[in-house]
Amino acid sequence: MRSDKPLILISNDDGFQAKGINELVMFLRDIADLIVVAPDGPRSGASGAITSANPVNYVKIREEEGLVVYKCSGTPVDSVKLALHVLVPRVPDMVIGGINHGDNSSVNVHYSGTMGIVIEGCLKGIPSIGFSLCNHSSDADFSPSCPFVRDIVSTTLEKGLPYGTCLNVNFPDTDNLKGIRICRQTDGVWINEFAECNSPRGAGYYWLTGSYKNNEPDSIDTDHWALDNGYVAVTPTKIDLTSYKLMEEMKQWDFKL
Amino acid sequence: MRSDKPLILISNDDGFQAKGINELVMFLRDIADLIVVAPDGPRSGASGAITSANPVNYVKIREEEGLVVYKCSGTPVDSVKLALHVLVPRVPDMVIGGINHGDNSSVNVHYSGTMGIVIEGCLKGIPSIGFSLCNHSSDADFSPSCPFVRDIVSTTLEKGLPYGTCLNVNFPDTDNLKGIRICRQTDGVWINEFAECNSPRGAGYYWLTGSYKNNEPDSIDTDHWALDNGYVAVTPTKIDLTSYKLMEEMKQWDFKL
Repeated sequence: MRSDKPLILISNDDGFQAKGINELVMFLRDIADLIVVAPDGPRSGASGAITSANPVNYVKIREEEGLVVYKCSGTPVDSVKLALHVLVPRVPDMVIGGINHGDNSSVNVHYSGTMGIVIEGCLKGIPSIGFSLCNHSSDADFSPSCPFVRDIVSTTLEKGLPYGTCLNVNFPDTDNLKGIRICRQTDGVWINEFAECNSPRGAGYYWLTGSYKNNEPDSIDTDHWALDNGYVAVTPTKIDLTSYKLMEEMKQWDFKL
Repeated sequence: MRSDKPLILISNDDGFQAKGINELVMFLRDIADLIVVAPDGPRSGASGAITSANPVNYVKIREEEGLVVYKCSGTPVDSVKLALHVLVPRVPDMVIGGINHGDNSSVNVHYSGTMGIVIEGCLKGIPSIGFSLCNHSSDADFSPSCPFVRDIVSTTLEKGLPYGTCLNVNFPDTDNLKGIRICRQTDGVWINEFAECNSPRGAGYYWLTGSYKNNEPDSIDTDHWALDNGYVAVTPTKIDLTSYKLMEEMKQWDFKL
């Protein structure tokens, strides 16, 4: 880790053994030194969760020239925090989450452990990117994304990202990617979210499932439109959640106190 | 639950037995019918996490006129999703998270299970508010917040909230609250985030801790300034994370592909 190459911290929410993160490492091996600190197993849907009730730890899995891999007992965000606190030799030039097995466009950004990683990197002032493929399968084919991942990482390392902003990049599941589109987050909603089952002893339990409803399927500037039409969706994302518009409106509200 | 009162769904991330949620119920009993669906134990720092690897379930704890309380085996967001899917008699007029034991202003919004609840309610198109007190103690004194909680809930029920927006309300830990301030999210960062310990067998482990650093202590329009100065901080929050500014800038980037 003493080369002149950029240093990139990589994590994910599918665990260090997932195909997506290992493909990402292969895609980026020659352009950066890589530190992988990823959960020891699947943490899909972890969002920005942190572990405070228990301690967390890490174990080094392997080390080669320009690559070191650790597994972490905590959440995706714990992994980033722990990496930045004790494992990196210097502040990384970039934090990357992914490549996720599954779509993190639209409202999924709020549940995404991948984007939890990216927001954490961004909160620490580091240019950060999340990559996700719209295929949940454990053996999904990530190879079509390779040249785009390399292009987006290289260009972002060169250009930088404004303070407080990061990128949410999603790939449609096709080997015929049409190019990159800069998008906004689609307005959508998950409906019919549970499948009800009964245990052998009769107690009801509920599996999360559901259908995604796009509230604006004809809006061509959205990330979901891009994905539906074969484009790589790059959604610039920010960590300041303030609604400045509502802030102005509420100053006119008549609170009694 | 057949009265003419508004119907409010309440959850939290400290668990259904926490003082904060039970105080909130007392504050609102006379102005709304209440359904409480909250985690069966502490889930602090759960952010927007959802449970997909396991099923979740619920148990009814008590039922009185205008109040029913359930505990849920999942995360705060699971609790909201499950409540809306199977437990509410109709779409609630409001979703409330809290009252949280601890500060959810500034960047804490990204880790907050309380705000996970609120964002979930907002994603479902329901006016949603998170209430948090800047005191982590299990027996914190919530009573000074009572008139403000009632005022903010009543006024918001009357005015509504624009689609895609919700409120993050934080109370300083004082019995001399100076009034309500409409704020923006403070730019800040957590530093020195872990305390390292060794197990009896020598293995290192790490407890999440840390100090909050306010990057703009003199900005009087921020939620942290309001809290530092004895005001109730109301931060209008939105679920569209798109950086429209970076979106325009990135359209000028020269990607190779």
